[in-house]
Amino acid sequence: MSVASEMVSSYPKDLGGIDEAALVECIQACVECAQACTACADACLSEDMVAELTKCIWTDLDCADVCETTGRVLSRHTGYDANVTRAVLQACAAACKACGDECESHAGMHEHCRICAQACRRCEQACRQLLAALG
Amino acid sequence: MSVASEMVSSYPKDLGGIDEAALVECIQACVECAQACTACADACLSEDMVAELTKCIWTDLDCADVCETTGRVLSRHTGYDANVTRAVLQACAAACKACGDECESHAGMHEHCRICAQACRRCEQACRQLLAALG
Amino acid sequence: MSVASEMVSSYPKDLGGIDEAALVECIQACVECAQACTACADACLSEDMVAELTKCIWTDLDCADVCETTGRVLSRHTGYDANVTRAVLQACAAACKACGDECESHAGMHEHCRICAQACRRCEQACRQLLAALG
Amino acid sequence: MSVASEMVSSYPKDLGGIDEAALVECIQACVECAQACTACADACLSEDMVAELTKCIWTDLDCADVCETTGRVLSRHTGYDANVTRAVLQACAAACKACGDECESHAGMHEHCRICAQACRRCEQACRQLLAALG
Repeated sequence: MSVASEMVSSYPKDLGGIDEAALVECIQACVECAQACTACADACLSEDMVAELTKCIWTDLDCADVCETTGRVLSRHTGYDANVTRAVLQACAAACKACGDECESHAGMHEHCRICAQACRRCEQACRQLLAALG
Repeated sequence: MSVASEMVSSYPKDLGGIDEAALVECIQACVECAQACTACADACLSEDMVAELTKCIWTDLDCADVCETTGRVLSRHTGYDANVTRAVLQACAAACKACGDECESHAGMHEHCRICAQACRRCEQACRQLLAALG
Repeated sequence: MSVASEMVSSYPKDLGGIDEAALVECIQACVECAQACTACADACLSEDMVAELTKCIWTDLDCADVCETTGRVLSRHTGYDANVTRAVLQACAAACKACGDECESHAGMHEHCRICAQACRRCEQACRQLLAALG
Repeated sequence: MSVASEMVSSYPKDLGGIDEAALVECIQACVECAQACTACADACLSEDMVAELTKCIWTDLDCADVCETTGRVLSRHTGYDANVTRAVLQACAAACKACGDECESHAGMHEHCRICAQACRRCEQACRQLLAALG
């Protein structure tokens, strides 16, 4: 069992009927995607063809920040506000879509973009599934 | 002129017709609100009646994270994606509304909540004005 | 192989002789510890005895921020500056020590503190091992 | 009076004899420097000569993260741990020194680097003064 999963299980109050598996998957996907995007931006910076990767670096940086904040918001349950959670998940899905599309377009040439695109796709899907589960 | 304003003015490419005054105001409001929320959460933690302020601490923490990320996203222009910016601004307005409402309800009793509520209102309004300016 | 590990392996330039296993372990420990601390602060906020857990919430919040930044700094290699990396790792070890000690003192009573203390210990150790490997 | 200053003044418990003016100046310098570094990294990304600015982007990104975390740690007083605060301030001074040096070397050519270098110098100095005041 992952640490994120153990933390959700040890929350002392009721989680209000949220789909716990979808929640844990989304927290983990956010955290993993944030790290991948930070690393991909840096790897792009080190490529000789950096001038052709500036849009990729930009989407990586935005996506890293949005995913990190989403992972934090989802890790908090005290005082839960569905409006905030839903809006944050929508922003995260949008950032992951933009970054996944951009990284995928470089995936044939750069291994770091291929791995990062996968992390973005996983995170976008996890956000959409949690949004659906929230109703 | 503020540093945020100087940085927007020194951006080397075209900003695509964005309302620069609304952009600068929103960046500054986000940064200020994030700091106020971090400090308000800590001040609430130090109150003897902390048990009655847990929802306030929770909204402060969420709002701090969302404002910080929004300030970062708005500080980047290379490769601008309106879908991401719009979704992030909506999430920020929602987080500021929730935190502003909660802090305002304690404003008569706690000066830090009164100041923080003002920062949240300013930031929510700046997000909504920038959203309107984006069209 | 974890995503963090794949990202290190796909970095396009030389990593300057750094111990890659120690680097990957430290990135992963930072990311995991940051999430655990964010969740532990929130779980403490939901305990009926929150008034006795304010120091724990405080160390959790500091540790979450420092670990997150350390995970980001370690995910970047372009233009590597040993002085910054070393100072950041020392700050992270100090934050993890403080939070690990505090959470451990509540571990018998709160499962979330027990899990979080373990994440802090793992991260503190990973920081110290990477510091030693950097020489 | 700035919002950061008002928040320090409204903290409900004793601040333990800390130099409040040095504390407020350091919080404000951290927050301002973090935003300037985020914007400078993006401005560098948009320069035609981006390939010559990769080290500058890298130091900007590290400095933005470290300053943001330092501003947060300094905004919290509940349970104050001098070891953590001191280590974080040292890391922040190191990151600001590295970024200030790098940005200064491009200041004659890029206005955003000139402004960012100033923000880094101000923040490095504020960290060193607060460290000295902590004793």
